[in-house]
Amino acid sequence: MRASRPAVHPVEAPPPAPAAAAQAQAQAEGVAHPRGVRMKDPPGAPGTPAGLGLRLAQAFFAAAALAVMASTNDFPSVSAFSYLVAAAILQCLWSLTLAFIDIYALLVKRSLRNARAVCIFTIGDGITGTLTLGAACASAGITVLIGNDLNICAENHCASFETATAMAFISWFALAPSCILNFWSMASR
Amino acid sequence: MRASRPAVHPVEAPPPAPAAAAQAQAQAEGVAHPRGVRMKDPPGAPGTPAGLGLRLAQAFFAAAALAVMASTNDFPSVSAFSYLVAAAILQCLWSLTLAFIDIYALLVKRSLRNARAVCIFTIGDGITGTLTLGAACASAGITVLIGNDLNICAENHCASFETATAMAFISWFALAPSCILNFWSMASR
Repeated sequence: MRASRPAVHPVEAPPPAPAAAAQAQAQAEGVAHPRGVRMKDPPGAPGTPAGLGLRLAQAFFAAAALAVMASTNDFPSVSAFSYLVAAAILQCLWSLTLAFIDIYALLVKRSLRNARAVCIFTIGDGITGTLTLGAACASAGITVLIGNDLNICAENHCASFETATAMAFISWFALAPSCILNFWSMASR
Repeated sequence: MRASRPAVHPVEAPPPAPAAAAQAQAQAEGVAHPRGVRMKDPPGAPGTPAGLGLRLAQAFFAAAALAVMASTNDFPSVSAFSYLVAAAILQCLWSLTLAFIDIYALLVKRSLRNARAVCIFTIGDGITGTLTLGAACASAGITVLIGNDLNICAENHCASFETATAMAFISWFALAPSCILNFWSMASR
């Protein structure tokens, strides 16, 4: 009976070649290098200084839109302006969260090319970007209606509305490269 | 003199292996199959029946938004509604153009996975999608302002404005899969 059992003490494997070891380590770290040599993270991707700069710019301009809009006392009377405030808060929180992740990745010199992380970043960027663009466009429509079509700027805070709308648009312009780079990185692996 | 001339009657080449022939034909058609076996065009990609259906849906809903908005006599007094009409015209023309290209590709059974074509489709989809979403959001902001915030629907064509806005949103929802699939196809080659 004992003779038919397989060996339970594993035979020590020979040390792998250096290239195979590096590949195994990369796979263990969740970094995908499936097809030969791959370029490093492009500027603007998560975990790079440019990516961190984009995130901080998004958060800054979203916070500016929020502050300028909230400084007017009559923004809750218009639904689109309330929606802009909500979208700016969401955008600011999302960008700040990713900025902290970028700072962590830069400090510990860790790549953020993990497949699941990039997928979450892309979906989140897409959702917050669509909401921010929608809020900015809705506010722009109302601002143009007040300022150009009805000419009732004297009774309203047209300058504040326009500034907040412009800040929201700039925040969206800073978000677009992050979203496109994340989606590209997700698709090209 | 005659003897030094090269042969003008080409020697018949031996028939290549079937796999090599298929690969050469694919390369001649501009279809990229760089890494082993690749799936066929996913449903919704340009040149597929689902892609054609998406294009026709985009064009139909953009045309519906255009028709409903143009049927109101006072839309030029609001900038956002004029912008919606312009964006719907652009969206309709773009989607119809790509629908004709899809019909041609389906009739001649030709793949549209050409790198340059996919790049042009992606950029065009991105631009028209952003414009359509912006126009829909601006119109939605004004419609909500008229209907909910100011309650002056009695003097305005609220139902028409709401219908046109909804049609523009549906057109954008039909455009999003095309744009994402084209971008994915561009990035993953």
